[in-house]
Amino acid sequence: MKKFVYLFKEADGEDKVLFGAKGANLAQMTKIGLPVPQGFLITTEACTKYFEDGKLLKNDISAQIEKKLEQLEKLTGKNLGKAENPLLVAVRSGARVSMPGMMDTILDVGINDEVVKGLAKLTKNEWFAYDSYRRFIFMFATLVMQHDVQRYEEILDQVKAKQGVALDKDLSIEALKKIVLMYKRLYREIQNAELPQDPKVQLVEAVKAVFKSWDNPRAEVYRKMHDIPYSWGTGVSVQTMVFGNMGDDCSTGVVFTRNPATGKKEIYGEFLINAQGEDITSGTRTLLPISQLQRKSPEIYTQFVTILQKLEKHYKDMQEVEFTIEKNKLYILQTRNGRRTAKAGLKIAMDFVKEKVLDEKNALLMIDPRQMDTLMHQAFVDSAIKKAKPIGEGIPVSPGAASGKICFSADKAIRTSAKKEKVVLVVPELSSEDVRQLNFVEGFLTTRGGMTSHASVVARGNGICCVAGCSDIVFADDKKSFTLGGNKYKEGDDISFDGSTGKIYEGEIPTEEAKLSNDFVTIMKWSDKYREMGVRANADNANDTELAAKLGAEGIGLCRTEHMFLDKTSLKLIRELIISDSVKERMSALNKLLPKQKEDFKAIFKAMKGKPVTIRFLDPPFNEFLPQSDEELTSLAKSLNMTFDELKAKVNSLHEVNPMMGHRGLRIAISYPEIVEMQTEAIIRAAIEVQKENRTELCPELMIPLTSDCAEFKFVKDIVVAKADKILQETNASLKYKVGTMIEVPRAAITADQIAKFAEFFSFGTNDLTQLTYGFSRDDSWKFLDDYYSKKIFDSNPFVKLDQNGVGKILRIASELGKSTRPDIELGVCGEHGGEPVAIEYFHRIGLNYVSCSPYRVPVARLAAAQSAIRYSRSKKSFFRRKK
Amino acid sequence: MKKFVYLFKEADGEDKVLFGAKGANLAQMTKIGLPVPQGFLITTEACTKYFEDGKLLKNDISAQIEKKLEQLEKLTGKNLGKAENPLLVAVRSGARVSMPGMMDTILDVGINDEVVKGLAKLTKNEWFAYDSYRRFIFMFATLVMQHDVQRYEEILDQVKAKQGVALDKDLSIEALKKIVLMYKRLYREIQNAELPQDPKVQLVEAVKAVFKSWDNPRAEVYRKMHDIPYSWGTGVSVQTMVFGNMGDDCSTGVVFTRNPATGKKEIYGEFLINAQGEDITSGTRTLLPISQLQRKSPEIYTQFVTILQKLEKHYKDMQEVEFTIEKNKLYILQTRNGRRTAKAGLKIAMDFVKEKVLDEKNALLMIDPRQMDTLMHQAFVDSAIKKAKPIGEGIPVSPGAASGKICFSADKAIRTSAKKEKVVLVVPELSSEDVRQLNFVEGFLTTRGGMTSHASVVARGNGICCVAGCSDIVFADDKKSFTLGGNKYKEGDDISFDGSTGKIYEGEIPTEEAKLSNDFVTIMKWSDKYREMGVRANADNANDTELAAKLGAEGIGLCRTEHMFLDKTSLKLIRELIISDSVKERMSALNKLLPKQKEDFKAIFKAMKGKPVTIRFLDPPFNEFLPQSDEELTSLAKSLNMTFDELKAKVNSLHEVNPMMGHRGLRIAISYPEIVEMQTEAIIRAAIEVQKENRTELCPELMIPLTSDCAEFKFVKDIVVAKADKILQETNASLKYKVGTMIEVPRAAITADQIAKFAEFFSFGTNDLTQLTYGFSRDDSWKFLDDYYSKKIFDSNPFVKLDQNGVGKILRIASELGKSTRPDIELGVCGEHGGEPVAIEYFHRIGLNYVSCSPYRVPVARLAAAQSAIRYSRSKKSFFRRKK
Repeated sequence: MKKFVYLFKEADGEDKVLFGAKGANLAQMTKIGLPVPQGFLITTEACTKYFEDGKLLKNDISAQIEKKLEQLEKLTGKNLGKAENPLLVAVRSGARVSMPGMMDTILDVGINDEVVKGLAKLTKNEWFAYDSYRRFIFMFATLVMQHDVQRYEEILDQVKAKQGVALDKDLSIEALKKIVLMYKRLYREIQNAELPQDPKVQLVEAVKAVFKSWDNPRAEVYRKMHDIPYSWGTGVSVQTMVFGNMGDDCSTGVVFTRNPATGKKEIYGEFLINAQGEDITSGTRTLLPISQLQRKSPEIYTQFVTILQKLEKHYKDMQEVEFTIEKNKLYILQTRNGRRTAKAGLKIAMDFVKEKVLDEKNALLMIDPRQMDTLMHQAFVDSAIKKAKPIGEGIPVSPGAASGKICFSADKAIRTSAKKEKVVLVVPELSSEDVRQLNFVEGFLTTRGGMTSHASVVARGNGICCVAGCSDIVFADDKKSFTLGGNKYKEGDDISFDGSTGKIYEGEIPTEEAKLSNDFVTIMKWSDKYREMGVRANADNANDTELAAKLGAEGIGLCRTEHMFLDKTSLKLIRELIISDSVKERMSALNKLLPKQKEDFKAIFKAMKGKPVTIRFLDPPFNEFLPQSDEELTSLAKSLNMTFDELKAKVNSLHEVNPMMGHRGLRIAISYPEIVEMQTEAIIRAAIEVQKENRTELCPELMIPLTSDCAEFKFVKDIVVAKADKILQETNASLKYKVGTMIEVPRAAITADQIAKFAEFFSFGTNDLTQLTYGFSRDDSWKFLDDYYSKKIFDSNPFVKLDQNGVGKILRIASELGKSTRPDIELGVCGEHGGEPVAIEYFHRIGLNYVSCSPYRVPVARLAAAQSAIRYSRSKKSFFRRKK
Repeated sequence: MKKFVYLFKEADGEDKVLFGAKGANLAQMTKIGLPVPQGFLITTEACTKYFEDGKLLKNDISAQIEKKLEQLEKLTGKNLGKAENPLLVAVRSGARVSMPGMMDTILDVGINDEVVKGLAKLTKNEWFAYDSYRRFIFMFATLVMQHDVQRYEEILDQVKAKQGVALDKDLSIEALKKIVLMYKRLYREIQNAELPQDPKVQLVEAVKAVFKSWDNPRAEVYRKMHDIPYSWGTGVSVQTMVFGNMGDDCSTGVVFTRNPATGKKEIYGEFLINAQGEDITSGTRTLLPISQLQRKSPEIYTQFVTILQKLEKHYKDMQEVEFTIEKNKLYILQTRNGRRTAKAGLKIAMDFVKEKVLDEKNALLMIDPRQMDTLMHQAFVDSAIKKAKPIGEGIPVSPGAASGKICFSADKAIRTSAKKEKVVLVVPELSSEDVRQLNFVEGFLTTRGGMTSHASVVARGNGICCVAGCSDIVFADDKKSFTLGGNKYKEGDDISFDGSTGKIYEGEIPTEEAKLSNDFVTIMKWSDKYREMGVRANADNANDTELAAKLGAEGIGLCRTEHMFLDKTSLKLIRELIISDSVKERMSALNKLLPKQKEDFKAIFKAMKGKPVTIRFLDPPFNEFLPQSDEELTSLAKSLNMTFDELKAKVNSLHEVNPMMGHRGLRIAISYPEIVEMQTEAIIRAAIEVQKENRTELCPELMIPLTSDCAEFKFVKDIVVAKADKILQETNASLKYKVGTMIEVPRAAITADQIAKFAEFFSFGTNDLTQLTYGFSRDDSWKFLDDYYSKKIFDSNPFVKLDQNGVGKILRIASELGKSTRPDIELGVCGEHGGEPVAIEYFHRIGLNYVSCSPYRVPVARLAAAQSAIRYSRSKKSFFRRKK
């Protein structure tokens, strides 16, 4: 039979997959001789089995629990349920990665009407015994049986009021006994059964409750945000209780081995005298800084510091340690790698190298690349945020700190901004067009949407703070105000929100620009030293290009030319182009667009100083450039010298049932070669001029979008090359350039060998490739993907986390096929996943040459690429070799 | 250097790829000693090179032509351009498959001002010499130089009028000389140069003109209709002229070795005395039946019949032979497998077996499976169609014969039909919804759209005659009439059209139902004997199922349950379902739908008599069931007891940017499991009842659409199995059933090994798979695919002809992956390609178990499957083995 239950001392302290992080660490600490209250671990496999068996704890597991319980009783000399010498246990969750506060813990399991008396007698502390009992009943009722918390708290409040005390610790013994009585009565009333007095029943129910809590909504949200698969399951630790609530020689607390906010090397933490763990987090009592422990019990403190140093040295990472002191004896309840701010993360990594604990590679591996993002954006001034009034929370979709006057419409935002006011837009929903048009705002706050809404993606790409999906915001019927956190806000009121945490605050909060610290610079230098993949940025103008260069981009991997058509003059010209009925009319509009495009490209080439720039030809369907409302069409028709009916007919003729799969990308180039010719001319002339002006050699990469077939690609490439070579001949200039394609259509991927005969580079567009591979419209799929998460079908959104099994497999096939006909083909990624650390590791494994991401993600990508290279070179069981 | 030019006697008579069909046959006939005027062949590779070189005939080819010309001169003892003994040649096209009349032929090449005189002297026939010269100038000017035909015909008409004759053959010598003079003058005027007198220049220009004609619009349309790739190119034959126009002992004609209309074994054909080939096709002279040749020249006739028998025996197929008799000497100019009607095709194949010329397998290979389709549909009465007045032509997209009163709207059609009138709908465009709603009409005629428009596909599927894309129809501004062929037609006028030919006729033409002949039955029996793949039909109701069974379907491969919701009662219920906000409301609608669905399934099971029936769960997005116009919504809102605003809001909330990739297929089942549960219940209960009533064992196949991931599939399968097993338990019935999936999303295909762990069968939905693999929306792509054809990027529409390189590759990968985890997995195709012979051959090769197509295509598929099996078993270089 499979082994599902292990004593701490039997378990493998390295095996976080089987035991969860907390469980493995308990085993490890036991092994290195730390004062850990003993117990046993139930594996994550047992959890998975519990769910597979339809939320039943079958005999094979419960029998093993009973057996290990016996062994634990022998080990501790105490017995579960035995009043004379009772064993009480804490039942805690523990997943492969720590999910603090997301799942349930049940303490004091094993107490009952008899045991409480024995405990009182044994400890000579009746207060403690009944305090423990009332705590147990509360947890068992509300967590295991899911009774309404409110009703138990009412009892507690009632008794406290009657006794006239404010804190639990000041309750009298009689009061505690009364509470126990009232709790048991309430339990019976709700449950229609007595509180279980059999300690084994308590234990099994507690274990089941912890398993079940893997499935609770809080845990689900947390998993989604942190990419934790549902299939991992949680482990359970059953640990002998030690008591911080037996009197004033008892205490409990949490410490960090370094300062988690700054990274400074110091013991940092807080504790409470005469308390249990849940009192720390409840916030009702004032915590004492750990320095007071030093004053109070210097010997214990010294012992503790030695243990902390031992733990940090062992785990080679900053530790967050929970401890309890029971009658002046120190116990370590758990340890884990401590959460820290981005800033602290860099400092700790740097210090570990200075202290020679880690080499550069291992130090890089300590840092969470996702956190780098927050270092790049403006933030609220620390002192101010502490005083700010939080009023709500949404989904943090684009980092940064926004503070300004509330506007409810684009129009209002434009007018308010014109008065030099700082503006935040608060709207039910946001379109990506809004984001582009309103790139001057401090931030976006929406009631709908989420991490992967198109608008969120664009906001992230543009580095604009955005908090989405705050469904607590309720707009008034007249749409002139909204309520949040019980208050009413109207246009012009000040509000602030943090795109890294999702928190929303009342009023204006001062912000400060990000300063790139020396630690940041050093970590990036190390990253560049170890990474093998290039990192480019997606940028469509000189400003973004300069920002990207500053953040270390080695080129532009995606310059979307259509974004250059959005200023007023260009937009008018592109609209003229679209409504043209003849090549001649189109040429006239194109000739006017040409100088503007050329100048745009020149600015980008100059900002990139000779580094590669990949420019994508016009991609979106025409209708995206035309307004759709009759009002706007009327005014446009006037400016274009046509009737409303003519224009409306044109718009209708351009309507597509599925525009994502319609007349766009190179399909436009095939129908209207003159457009691709104009763009080629603008690129080539710009490059020639910048080469001359700056005396640098350029090599623009001209990228044809949406290829599905090699003949299609060749047709457009031939147009591009003919035009480019003609200009080079005419101007007698010499310029290297490449012509390649996006691989974003499944057919292109599986016929990549054919396409690579003509294409000099591939750039994987993972956004569209994900859409077509799954048949998920990005604009629509959020409507049903929520059902996929809630029904545990998908763990994560494939538009955010690369689907390695499907989309990733296609990328691998395309890479291999591409290299089979053009071994030196340049392979990159320019889709959203190009800035996602887990995806970057996959891209490294399949041998891509570079990733390209939004400028603010460049440092993330640099670090992630380095980590990928380091991990890859160490991995022995990698399923295929990276091909260079 | 590559050899581009071969004498007839040098060429390989089997190599149609290199020499074209005509060229290869000329070589073959030369080899077996038939009286073929000698000449040389220019390969199809030369044609391809000509286009690659930018429509230039480079030195390597022209030098080879000159060399072969010399050899031909030696062979014939005549010399090009030598007045005393001139060689004249005919320059003809010849592609790999015959494309009659699509490309250009230039006769009498080599004649000039001197040669004409020599020819007159040599033949003692001045009339003939000048007749040849004027013919040559006409062809050279209009075909090679593309002068306006009209202007040359005007001259001819003018001279004939002046002389007072009606036929060319009655022109006097003087008149012919005058024509030559006037032609030359006109040539100079248009060309601004003299007519080339150098015979070699004439020859080279003629060859180039034939190459170029591969590219002409007629040829392009023909290639598209017959799936002939542009890349094949045409060969050119240069053949010594023989003359049917040297006097009354000369003639020219075309005969078939069997009757091409009936298949009867008889020499069938026509000829003209004193004429050249182009007179046969011009229609100005009355042709003589070939029997008159027997009377006129019995010896030549006997010689001819011997040759015909020899040819038929050699090619083992009915031959269509062009011949010329020059001064009582018979020449064979070309032979090819003759075109025939479907009916004749069957008879000829049958007779060849009876005559022991062919065995059954080879006889089956003779028959064009595409032609079977026309045998199944009603047709115009033969005698009536001969008298009908053709007024135009469109693209034949769905076979059959339609005759009835013109209606311009669905509304009018419904009202007219209510009066028991036969109705044809004539509209600019057709939606697939129109087709479904108006399935009572005789036929559809549209000005836009084509073979692959969604509506065309639905029309074909429903067996309704349809001619599309007749752009000659011009609607009046008031939309109350249209003009075609110079006449005006209004609503209520009678019109007829043929969905197999695209021809449109004035007035009503009587039609007759198809009768399935004995030949048909025998051919089908043979097909079933040799084929290895099963053939099922797509059918959604009992009528279609019965039709399918009658036409030999071995099961239903696709029953679309949503089609059962289109009657008035069901539609109302499904709409109630859609606007429901709670499971309870939905259940109420579903409970009402259940009995109806169950009865529908029972009828289908009964009609299929125990053969497998694959039923697909609800697939389309909800919005397809809701009206979109405000008017209809108002009335629907009323009937649903809700306000217009509520309903409108619901419709808007269901709006999707890209519905093809939206909330549909199993995504609906995931959001609303109660729907799939109801459908499962209807299927299982229907099957149990039919098993009991009919005492047959059933095994329904429950098909989950749009799977992209195995977890997704498993989730829905679990619901289906739980429901089914619950019913079986409750009813204490025993029933086998299978649960499988459509493979129509690329990700499903490339993760088919995972999905096959749970899915018992795959049915490839090649329509959606083609959409997603290419990123081509079927609803929109026709707008740009026309550019792909005209620019020679694509030869064919991937929705019609399976894209073997891309979509086919994905099918192959999916088949292999599926079998890797479930070796006995059942693999079928239910997309549009399931009835397409070339695709069927591919499906055979990759080892699929069956194809499923619309009922009328079942015989096509049976024959095509047999041919695939026969060809496959013979093929030695097949790139992979069929896996069973």
